[in-house]
Amino acid sequence: MITISKDELELFATDLLLAAKSSREDAELVAHSLVWADLRGRQPQGVFRIPVLVTMIHHGLITSPTEMNWSKRSEVMYHLDAGNGFGQVAGYRAMQKAIDIAKKIGIGMVTVNRSNHFGAASYFCALAADAQCVGLTFTNATPKVAPFGGTKPILGTNPVAFGCPTSSGVPILVDFSTSSIAGSTIRTITEGGGRLPKGVALDASGQPTTDPAALSSGCLLPAAGAKGYGLGLMIEIFCGILAGAGMSHEVGPFYSTWKRPVNSGHMMMAIDISRLQPLDMYFDRLDQLIKEIKSSPTLEHVDEVLIPGEVRGRFADQFSREGIPLNDETIHGLENLARSLAVEVPWKQAAPVSVHDKQ
Amino acid sequence: MITISKDELELFATDLLLAAKSSREDAELVAHSLVWADLRGRQPQGVFRIPVLVTMIHHGLITSPTEMNWSKRSEVMYHLDAGNGFGQVAGYRAMQKAIDIAKKIGIGMVTVNRSNHFGAASYFCALAADAQCVGLTFTNATPKVAPFGGTKPILGTNPVAFGCPTSSGVPILVDFSTSSIAGSTIRTITEGGGRLPKGVALDASGQPTTDPAALSSGCLLPAAGAKGYGLGLMIEIFCGILAGAGMSHEVGPFYSTWKRPVNSGHMMMAIDISRLQPLDMYFDRLDQLIKEIKSSPTLEHVDEVLIPGEVRGRFADQFSREGIPLNDETIHGLENLARSLAVEVPWKQAAPVSVHDKQ
Repeated sequence: MITISKDELELFATDLLLAAKSSREDAELVAHSLVWADLRGRQPQGVFRIPVLVTMIHHGLITSPTEMNWSKRSEVMYHLDAGNGFGQVAGYRAMQKAIDIAKKIGIGMVTVNRSNHFGAASYFCALAADAQCVGLTFTNATPKVAPFGGTKPILGTNPVAFGCPTSSGVPILVDFSTSSIAGSTIRTITEGGGRLPKGVALDASGQPTTDPAALSSGCLLPAAGAKGYGLGLMIEIFCGILAGAGMSHEVGPFYSTWKRPVNSGHMMMAIDISRLQPLDMYFDRLDQLIKEIKSSPTLEHVDEVLIPGEVRGRFADQFSREGIPLNDETIHGLENLARSLAVEVPWKQAAPVSVHDKQ
Repeated sequence: MITISKDELELFATDLLLAAKSSREDAELVAHSLVWADLRGRQPQGVFRIPVLVTMIHHGLITSPTEMNWSKRSEVMYHLDAGNGFGQVAGYRAMQKAIDIAKKIGIGMVTVNRSNHFGAASYFCALAADAQCVGLTFTNATPKVAPFGGTKPILGTNPVAFGCPTSSGVPILVDFSTSSIAGSTIRTITEGGGRLPKGVALDASGQPTTDPAALSSGCLLPAAGAKGYGLGLMIEIFCGILAGAGMSHEVGPFYSTWKRPVNSGHMMMAIDISRLQPLDMYFDRLDQLIKEIKSSPTLEHVDEVLIPGEVRGRFADQFSREGIPLNDETIHGLENLARSLAVEVPWKQAAPVSVHDKQ
């Protein structure tokens, strides 16, 4: 493990993406959004993803620079054809547009199609919160989740995120997959050689399994049964149908095959808080609600009741001061990529282990 | 048990509410929304509620007729002060307004405060679906649910509903509480003398319990832990803060004490589908998604994979033809109320059992 400052990491990430021939604007936006996740302790959504993003560029599945095209659907609704560009860039532009519209007329909604994986959904809701808006973000993804009662993957893990500002400056950020377990959690379990929790997955024959390897031909179950199924279906309708992107099996896998464009869809919505309530009153009321929640006694094994986004805010504070820790897998992936792209690594590297490494 | 035609039941419900001195407009709207739920097999949200609604009128907690006041927040956002009127009436007016705005400009959003329990949340999303819109409905409620990790009720069961039309005419309707078990399910269990499922509730000392009686001083747990907590908190922020209604313990109980106005808040949103996509294409794509979902193999004990709203649609079809079944508790409650209000009962009554009954 090493630690690196936020700015150094963002510069390094930008350099890697530039060396992979993405445009400067794209490289900077993607680097910013990835490091945002790392700064909040969400390594699976952070710079760890750069090698696979570069592989997708090389296979022509992510195009950069690309032309992204806007269409106006109404005064408050716009659509962005992301032209197979970075999901992070499409998501950023879409939420910024939604915020711009909300500032003019109260609500802005932007649908996106022909996009890719956009990283952490809450990143976009944090943009909305920074602009004193409520933000809502949906995205669909390649199918991994069975409908409630079924045994075949039809829906993606289809996450939903919500964000709003607080008086402390640390936004409330709700961000969860509608499956019983998130894709990034599975990745962490798989890499650690662990087993899945009980009740989250089925194998190819529709039987319960705790073997992460069984997931390649099996499926995840929806969160809270019919509830996660209903929410995941709603998101599929917004992103796969109303946004005009792929739906269900039309959405390509992000990180396993390199044969077809992902064509995922997103929905971004911003609502201007000051239209509904003076901001002072909003902050007072929210402070009161937060205080009430924090005052709840806790379960025996729980130290404190947390507000969604609170722990991430603490990581951001700590890692801003002390540097962002990168784990060995991330370091190894970035060092290999830097070597192949002839980019300088901003930390002292260990000597290459294998004589076959091309230096 | 008896069965009664939809029209007869609606007329009877209207007569009861009129006899309790509610306005004709209110009585007809409330009766329609209650019978809508009964027709779909949701008896806990149906005419079964009339006696308690009448009690609330008598205690001055539901005012009818009442002045409901509109404020314009922006071109696309309106607010309704429901004046402690019927939640069903406030919800109906709010969603109709949201639909009207959506038809003009793509999206309409209406917040509501000073309201009461509005019945089944999906009723309002069905109105949106009938108008070829996507509908979203949130409401908050008196606290029953602990925050994730906590042991004290801070949030209501705060349901969310989503609806959209399908080519068959039966809308997709997602409607669920963000608690691990719905209030109406608990009521059914309590009345049947049953036990709660494991893992849904804590007693007053914060220990897991399956005793429904322990809930009066205990709490429910959020659905899927942090996920239901995050979603319930989002709904509390929309309804209790942005809508300017009560939040957390400021929201009065609906059916247990009669001491203070409920002051719950709602949020209704409608999105005009045809602005995003030609309706033909929307229906084709949704048919394809539904077909894919229905084609999934099922778990061993499951007969078929269902689309949210599908079973309710089948009940509506069956009960429209065969009449709506009313259980003994509902019959008894309505007969007693009819007697006290001198309203004629539209079915043949059994002879009164108690000599103390006032005929």
